[in-house]
Amino acid sequence: MKKYVIGLDYGTDSCRALIVDAETGAEQASSVKYYPRWAKGLYCQPTANQYRQHPSDYVDCLEASVKEALSKCDPSVAEQVIGMSFDTTGSTPVFTDKKGTPLSLLPEFAENPNAMFVLWKDHTAVKEAAEVNELCAKWEIDYTAYEGGIYSSEWFWAKVLHVLRNDKKVRGAAYSIVEHCDWLPALLCGDTKPETMKRSRCAAGHKAMWLEKWGGLPSEKFLTALDPLLEGFRARLYKDTFTSDAKVGYLTPEWAKRLGLTTNVAVGVGAFDCHMGAVGAEAVPNTLVRVIGTSTCDILVSSYQEVGDKLIKGICGQVDGSVIPGYMGLEAGQSAFGDVYAWFKHVLAWPIVELVGKTKLIDDETKQKLVNEALDKIIPKLSDQAAEIDPKESSVLATDWMNGRRTPDASQLVQGSITGLTLGSTAPMIFRALVEATAFGSKAIVDRFTQEGVRIESVIGIGGISLKSPFVMQTMADVLNMPIKVARSEQACAFGAAMFAAVVAGVYDKVEDAQKTMGQGFANEYKPDPRMVAFYSEAYKKYALLGQLTEDNFFKTI
Amino acid sequence: MKKYVIGLDYGTDSCRALIVDAETGAEQASSVKYYPRWAKGLYCQPTANQYRQHPSDYVDCLEASVKEALSKCDPSVAEQVIGMSFDTTGSTPVFTDKKGTPLSLLPEFAENPNAMFVLWKDHTAVKEAAEVNELCAKWEIDYTAYEGGIYSSEWFWAKVLHVLRNDKKVRGAAYSIVEHCDWLPALLCGDTKPETMKRSRCAAGHKAMWLEKWGGLPSEKFLTALDPLLEGFRARLYKDTFTSDAKVGYLTPEWAKRLGLTTNVAVGVGAFDCHMGAVGAEAVPNTLVRVIGTSTCDILVSSYQEVGDKLIKGICGQVDGSVIPGYMGLEAGQSAFGDVYAWFKHVLAWPIVELVGKTKLIDDETKQKLVNEALDKIIPKLSDQAAEIDPKESSVLATDWMNGRRTPDASQLVQGSITGLTLGSTAPMIFRALVEATAFGSKAIVDRFTQEGVRIESVIGIGGISLKSPFVMQTMADVLNMPIKVARSEQACAFGAAMFAAVVAGVYDKVEDAQKTMGQGFANEYKPDPRMVAFYSEAYKKYALLGQLTEDNFFKTI
Repeated sequence: MKKYVIGLDYGTDSCRALIVDAETGAEQASSVKYYPRWAKGLYCQPTANQYRQHPSDYVDCLEASVKEALSKCDPSVAEQVIGMSFDTTGSTPVFTDKKGTPLSLLPEFAENPNAMFVLWKDHTAVKEAAEVNELCAKWEIDYTAYEGGIYSSEWFWAKVLHVLRNDKKVRGAAYSIVEHCDWLPALLCGDTKPETMKRSRCAAGHKAMWLEKWGGLPSEKFLTALDPLLEGFRARLYKDTFTSDAKVGYLTPEWAKRLGLTTNVAVGVGAFDCHMGAVGAEAVPNTLVRVIGTSTCDILVSSYQEVGDKLIKGICGQVDGSVIPGYMGLEAGQSAFGDVYAWFKHVLAWPIVELVGKTKLIDDETKQKLVNEALDKIIPKLSDQAAEIDPKESSVLATDWMNGRRTPDASQLVQGSITGLTLGSTAPMIFRALVEATAFGSKAIVDRFTQEGVRIESVIGIGGISLKSPFVMQTMADVLNMPIKVARSEQACAFGAAMFAAVVAGVYDKVEDAQKTMGQGFANEYKPDPRMVAFYSEAYKKYALLGQLTEDNFFKTI
Repeated sequence: MKKYVIGLDYGTDSCRALIVDAETGAEQASSVKYYPRWAKGLYCQPTANQYRQHPSDYVDCLEASVKEALSKCDPSVAEQVIGMSFDTTGSTPVFTDKKGTPLSLLPEFAENPNAMFVLWKDHTAVKEAAEVNELCAKWEIDYTAYEGGIYSSEWFWAKVLHVLRNDKKVRGAAYSIVEHCDWLPALLCGDTKPETMKRSRCAAGHKAMWLEKWGGLPSEKFLTALDPLLEGFRARLYKDTFTSDAKVGYLTPEWAKRLGLTTNVAVGVGAFDCHMGAVGAEAVPNTLVRVIGTSTCDILVSSYQEVGDKLIKGICGQVDGSVIPGYMGLEAGQSAFGDVYAWFKHVLAWPIVELVGKTKLIDDETKQKLVNEALDKIIPKLSDQAAEIDPKESSVLATDWMNGRRTPDASQLVQGSITGLTLGSTAPMIFRALVEATAFGSKAIVDRFTQEGVRIESVIGIGGISLKSPFVMQTMADVLNMPIKVARSEQACAFGAAMFAAVVAGVYDKVEDAQKTMGQGFANEYKPDPRMVAFYSEAYKKYALLGQLTEDNFFKTI
């Protein structure tokens, strides 16, 4: 008998099912399915920052991806699957009825976006987030303390309150609330009763202000002071939370049948994607795992001894067991990373689109080819030329706040700057400065942890940019003065879920053991170049000062 | 008998001869000739900022341009020409022998750049300029006081000292020194003797630290303290200086013949191009005349009552009679204006040149056409799209210091900045911010004059950008909250010289009278839009603060 596990990774646009041999880590098959309603833009209003997902999208893709992945394996694999775990985006909550069924699965709410999952990036609750912050500032307990000190419109209570205020029908039907990562395991195990459903420590601690020593969620008094509309929800939610090594239960016969599996499949407690991604990328204590894409999500695991009861100022949260059970999980991130480069590409693409794209000198077909060719090559060519520039020869300096700043010290008000411009400053020089700026933004995060007494000894990169851009990764290694390993697998989140599934199924005692055996290793390692380290150490001071000037003095005085 | 005059305008690359009816201002003909040796790049080292011009270039072009202009007129015109005046770039000095002949006209120095005119933009004397500033700071008289308080490497004494130190042969042969604008009139009138040559007040006052109440040029003690190599030159230069309504003399028979004119041609005292350009553009007291090209040269005429003995801080100089005799002439300017737009064009052109220009999808000839078409259209198209942007919708803000800052408060250390960048900031938004930045830079100059008690009531624009870019001119009118007239003639400098020639020839008593009759009028007038005035008044505060932050705090502390 072999032992297989399935990692299920629910991203913003799609769900991935990964089937892995739990005893070797060998990948058997994987399948990605895009959410069909979401792909059509249903239930969303981008101009209002409203992003909702229908629970049926999740269920349909679960079935389709698991079945497709199984279909790529030997037929014997299905009956040898013994574990399954989920990671999802978050905070992505939905209102449920008494049975724990998302309201939008009831016929009368089937088309109501307020009865659907409120996706992590939905920003409709800006006002409610501000109210949470205001109330926390004067409350006896600052419930935001372990979430970096600033509550976000992307998080649980802000979203919940916003929907309650704005939809009388949903308000009338809403009994409880569930996060995406908690709903799926509960659903598959046949017990979605809100009061007893096993809730993720990761989601509760990072987004719902849950803390064991506070007795769990914020007090009823606090919640009703925030708005009487919240009355009673606390008692219908949860007191205890669970780390992802805990088992929710086993597949019900009905779900086993729907997925083509057996009822021997243990299902684990879910968590957020980056947290499981960190595990999948073989995070060990004191290593910062960075999911590097359009933005970054940075996950650090640290010991209780090191963090203790200390509050790490200006990060996105610190939660006992949110990544590896038995350790503190700390979260940070940059609001824009690849997006900074994409922005500059967009600026430079202007003459290609507006002039070359509208020329009458060539036919439309050739023109389209030419435009596409040029657009595709902008970033690779900029990278090549920027890598050739001696940074000592360029005075250009930038900050990376084109999308505000997530950490350290979240602010949506800060904006990006470029200074040190002369008539000789070229596009590749500016691009180089932007790459340096994103690396400096990374250093600001690492420095904050260090200043607060939390050691970071090395960095692991996962996500598209880690594998695609050696220039960016080398610059980051030079700026951080730390080696950076790049995870080999592009499915680190799904691998992390698979590792937890292996623990839940009893193959390993601890997820650290699963990491050692199932880990996919590293594709590359960038080592800091000592000549650049000294230079960037000075340049970083300029970046910090430019940021301080454009933030503190400039935007605040005007 | 008609009365014709010739205005001769010596720019950086060419000489223009303009024949005008002195009694009506009607243009008869003009001719532009490019300096042949300069056009080949002879005697220059751009990488070392060494720019030298051979006197034969000036003489050859004088003959060619006057003759060509005359050839376009009725044959009777030549004998009815009664006046001729010159404007040139400056400070553009050359060493001469005892007769006042530029050393490079002697066979042994014919190919020696140090024996040639040191063009205004030659920056080889940076060290010497610093020494002048250092010595002035501790001297009993600050000789830089009427030149804005900072001596430049572009000016007379710095250049003279640099050449003396670096060329033993020239040092041995050098008897005196002459500015380009003084040499040509003296040459044509047959008396180039250095001690008696009539010297321009404009050149002497703005560039050689000449001031009447100081007894003329800086003292021998000062000059020899600067460097003993300067010993004796002061006595072989000049004590008195002349405004451009003064006559140098009449064409010698030899020169009359060479130019195809008569010996009845009175020749006036020369001046610098922008100063005569201001006159040609009908400058009146309290109107700022701006020559707007790659950079700006700003000329203001003000009454003695208004300026008195007051020193206007941080401008380029204030000289009695340097523009209109009987008034104070004040000079200022922006180091980069059109160059700021050209810089952004160059940045945006990168993908056109590097990607479209290297594609294999189309043949070389089409490619070249396509690239040229796109490059030509970048600024016009940016202007169109930028004009459509509601500036309240864009947070982008820039400073215009990509080439340092000329006024107010000259500094070569300041650099350009762009801030307020978000992921939604587009190329036209950035261009608009750059246009606003150049307008804000203009306002900084106007405000400085105003703060120092020198009124500016309106603005006249001359030069390419004034006529070519309504968007830029309207933005400037809105930012300055002043009407801006645009001179009709693109030959304002040559017209100014012609006006002075008419005074020298006795057609008018004063150049103001010549302006009234001979002036070409205005092509356009931009009036401030009250809705924009209020907005820009606030936006200017942000510009000023951004400048202050990036200058004072940022660059000084690093």
